[in-house]
Amino acid sequence: MSETAAAAGSVASATGTPVPARVAYLLGLGDDALVYAQRLGEWLTNAPQIEEDMALGNVGLDLLGQARTLLTHAGEVEGAGRDEDDLAYLRDEREFRNVHLVEQPRGDFGQEMARMLWFASYQCELYTALLELPTSDETLRGVAEKALKEVAYHRDHAGQWVLRLGDGTEESHARMQAGLEAVLPYLAELFDDDEASRWAAEAGIGVLPSTLHDGAVAHVRAVVQEATLDLPEESRWRSRGGREGIHSRPMGYLLAEMQHIHRSHPGASW
Amino acid sequence: MSETAAAAGSVASATGTPVPARVAYLLGLGDDALVYAQRLGEWLTNAPQIEEDMALGNVGLDLLGQARTLLTHAGEVEGAGRDEDDLAYLRDEREFRNVHLVEQPRGDFGQEMARMLWFASYQCELYTALLELPTSDETLRGVAEKALKEVAYHRDHAGQWVLRLGDGTEESHARMQAGLEAVLPYLAELFDDDEASRWAAEAGIGVLPSTLHDGAVAHVRAVVQEATLDLPEESRWRSRGGREGIHSRPMGYLLAEMQHIHRSHPGASW
Repeated sequence: MSETAAAAGSVASATGTPVPARVAYLLGLGDDALVYAQRLGEWLTNAPQIEEDMALGNVGLDLLGQARTLLTHAGEVEGAGRDEDDLAYLRDEREFRNVHLVEQPRGDFGQEMARMLWFASYQCELYTALLELPTSDETLRGVAEKALKEVAYHRDHAGQWVLRLGDGTEESHARMQAGLEAVLPYLAELFDDDEASRWAAEAGIGVLPSTLHDGAVAHVRAVVQEATLDLPEESRWRSRGGREGIHSRPMGYLLAEMQHIHRSHPGASW
Repeated sequence: MSETAAAAGSVASATGTPVPARVAYLLGLGDDALVYAQRLGEWLTNAPQIEEDMALGNVGLDLLGQARTLLTHAGEVEGAGRDEDDLAYLRDEREFRNVHLVEQPRGDFGQEMARMLWFASYQCELYTALLELPTSDETLRGVAEKALKEVAYHRDHAGQWVLRLGDGTEESHARMQAGLEAVLPYLAELFDDDEASRWAAEAGIGVLPSTLHDGAVAHVRAVVQEATLDLPEESRWRSRGGREGIHSRPMGYLLAEMQHIHRSHPGASW
């Protein structure tokens, strides 16, 4: 980021056009929730149990609700007349600011529980920290207050599965361990201080992701140890770029699936 | 059905093995909800609006909840030790007793709203009638009581879209009319008195689908007229066979998608 952009409160984007930092920060939070909701939606009626179908469906709907409020708010702050649907369905890939973790394709059920445990642990720390800010962004505070209850449930739900599978049969243990390894390359980005979050933290309306690392790791570590699994060492190879709009290959397919119906009849008004 | 089977309270099945009539009746109700939940799940995060994503997701979860209780109950009545998951994930196509309407692939959004309006109108009449029975099946009564509130909402939700689209632009009107035509071949089966429902009605624990026809049609007709659309005449060609386990081609693909994860690691216990 150039010094000029920083002074003006803008951050770089893969589109080449700088984005207002506050908008970028809100899009990062909202896009994480939106894209993970899309991935979880793929489990609805496809989980190993009907009860779990319903649980994953509910987690997905919680995240969609968070995304909806965050994107609406980002649109208002941006002031260019874009609403939640414009932002969800009419942006191109490089305008999305979610982390790579949430855009990865569905793996097996153990891998999904590993992803959910990490993402929900990150979100618990995030929303807790946002609530502790003497923030001037009341909308974001409102989201955090409602969402914290939701993500605490997601974290516990995933944690119970990690325990059950880790402490289960030899095969379930091996698969759960493999799930923890599979999500590893995508974890560091959750805790990276990108331009937008640095700006937001300085402005007092956001938090530095790096400050959320220790709390989230402590929670995941406790679950993993109780499940008689090993927490893989933090990887040297790190997938990153999501916060600037640079995504991994699966993101394009995900957006095509998510956006084609809206684009073929916007607002369902044809 | 042979007279012997009727006397014993069993009904024919496409598997060749007769099924206890009471179990068959409950499976019909539960499978309708389960299979439609699967189809609606395909809309999650794929609807034209985020708000609608959430609405369709919630409708799908309501139906999954109904399916769960109905299948659990069917398993208990059967007395062979099969639980909801065994019934959802380990039955073969010919053992499913849902109507063809719910197994049809997703069409456009207007077509989905036509299907939902019809199916929810049918379910409203069904659950209302079940509640009015001096029934001896308390579990079924409990399902009906809870579900009636849900399906009344589904019916209103679909009705509002039919109105909005029918009374919208020229194109939305044409598409909504096409949606009403598209579901037509699959409606008659909803109101067919099959062996299982005849047995259940006689035993006082179920209702004849033919008695639900007039109420459902009256509701749909009122919505369609207000939407300035035409209610197609009841078709002479009728897709049927679902209640005996004879399904249309899309059912096989739907089951493959729905069942493969459970079958690859039953109970998520590997």
